[in-house]
Amino acid sequence: MNKPISKGELSAADGAEAIRARYRRDDSPTPPVWNETLELLLAHRSIRAYLPEKIPAETLATVVAAAQSASTSSNLQVWSLVAVEDEARKSRLADLAGNQQHIRDAPLFLLWLADLSRLENIGKAQGRDGAALPYLEMFLTAAIDAGLAAQNALVALESLGFGGVYIGGIRNKPEEVAKELDLPPGVFAVFGMAVGRPDPAKAGGVRPRLGQGAVLHREQYAWNEAQREAVATYDEKFRDFQKEAGLPEQGWIRQALSRIRGPESLSGRDRLKEALRALGFALK
Amino acid sequence: MNKPISKGELSAADGAEAIRARYRRDDSPTPPVWNETLELLLAHRSIRAYLPEKIPAETLATVVAAAQSASTSSNLQVWSLVAVEDEARKSRLADLAGNQQHIRDAPLFLLWLADLSRLENIGKAQGRDGAALPYLEMFLTAAIDAGLAAQNALVALESLGFGGVYIGGIRNKPEEVAKELDLPPGVFAVFGMAVGRPDPAKAGGVRPRLGQGAVLHREQYAWNEAQREAVATYDEKFRDFQKEAGLPEQGWIRQALSRIRGPESLSGRDRLKEALRALGFALK
Repeated sequence: MNKPISKGELSAADGAEAIRARYRRDDSPTPPVWNETLELLLAHRSIRAYLPEKIPAETLATVVAAAQSASTSSNLQVWSLVAVEDEARKSRLADLAGNQQHIRDAPLFLLWLADLSRLENIGKAQGRDGAALPYLEMFLTAAIDAGLAAQNALVALESLGFGGVYIGGIRNKPEEVAKELDLPPGVFAVFGMAVGRPDPAKAGGVRPRLGQGAVLHREQYAWNEAQREAVATYDEKFRDFQKEAGLPEQGWIRQALSRIRGPESLSGRDRLKEALRALGFALK
Repeated sequence: MNKPISKGELSAADGAEAIRARYRRDDSPTPPVWNETLELLLAHRSIRAYLPEKIPAETLATVVAAAQSASTSSNLQVWSLVAVEDEARKSRLADLAGNQQHIRDAPLFLLWLADLSRLENIGKAQGRDGAALPYLEMFLTAAIDAGLAAQNALVALESLGFGGVYIGGIRNKPEEVAKELDLPPGVFAVFGMAVGRPDPAKAGGVRPRLGQGAVLHREQYAWNEAQREAVATYDEKFRDFQKEAGLPEQGWIRQALSRIRGPESLSGRDRLKEALRALGFALK
């Protein structure tokens, strides 16, 4: 993502190389054709170190237009975002998200919001009831819509040579985040995104993923030999990645199981339901 | 999305035109630069009419590689997908999703799954507990991860000249869908995606969106004059779009409020919480 987009024609061989870098498997699929957008998507990595370059307002507006071009359930558009550049506010949000220094370092911190408040306000102005809003379904719709929009935004940013990282830690303390952003009831910061121009001196490698045998099912789901093989092989490949990146070589299985071992491993998010109710989501 | 990707250089003027088509506002932002990926993202429209062309296996594999290249919370990769091509199964799923004919018409129907089952199985094999899995946080993480992956997949498909439409209706009857796909406890079909080569004879226009004054906030959230103006103006622009598309000219506000008027307007999704619990998500 850090290199400028190639102006030459890309070949299926370039694609095969990009896909192999993602899986580190000899049986990685070979694409029929390849293009600049696929090259960009496959090259994604999370960026946590930035050059001190601001994001111009017209760049942000362009990225938001890409975000809004994503699909939205029944065209309800139940999401919003807050763009934070103020240093003091970024620092407070970094603290709330588990003291993540890269939120402070990023010139721009985007908060992606599930927003049921806009429709509620519109309904009130029309004297009409929004009695479906308190249902879990509407919260889920809003969170998914925010996800689709944010992913389009990140792809747009990467196409412009910027990079970023999703910040789930913003869910550690939802009420405090809502207070910082002055969110009304019915608005929830689903995740953050720290954004900036990648520092080329600190660029990491492409993080490998589970082989497709683990995630792609045909016709019906199965926990089968293909899944088990993909998981076992991935654990080794991920250990290689950790070694190359200078990280502890614990493998993927141990790392993932450590993350889900219990409520204490959720960094406060074990009380998400309580927090959402306090923020006006009844989750009926 | 239907036209082949331009091989010529794209200019900021092309971008300004694409963004104006998305907002239909005179004050639409002008991008600083433009590229093929931005052109693709801005041109998105949902495709519900397809040519009878199959999706080759290597194309699907390429699209899945793009999906897996999206970020995933703590690298847990708690999503999967089922690719359905069987005509009878597509037809049954179409019925379950509110009798949507385009699911039958599409050569490929993708079901995007929140999948906590894989980690649970891995934990069991290691004799370790996954006590964090039953929390709402983990369900939300899985649903968002599925969303980020699916959006990358759709962008990849569009870059290859295919198109698709998200199918939220798959949440109308979650238990029946789970049975059809043989989903184990802890796996939920978050949404579907009908995919195919767009029928150029039935291509719709770009659907306009709310002006950025409604969705983009600086530093803090506000229900302010900028939001109210964007909503009011959008209602008019959307009415124009409906007229051009031969749809009832009811405007956006009326349409959106009708969708959220009460549990009866949620097509069965008012019982989503109950369905999720039946499918093994405790949502603690």
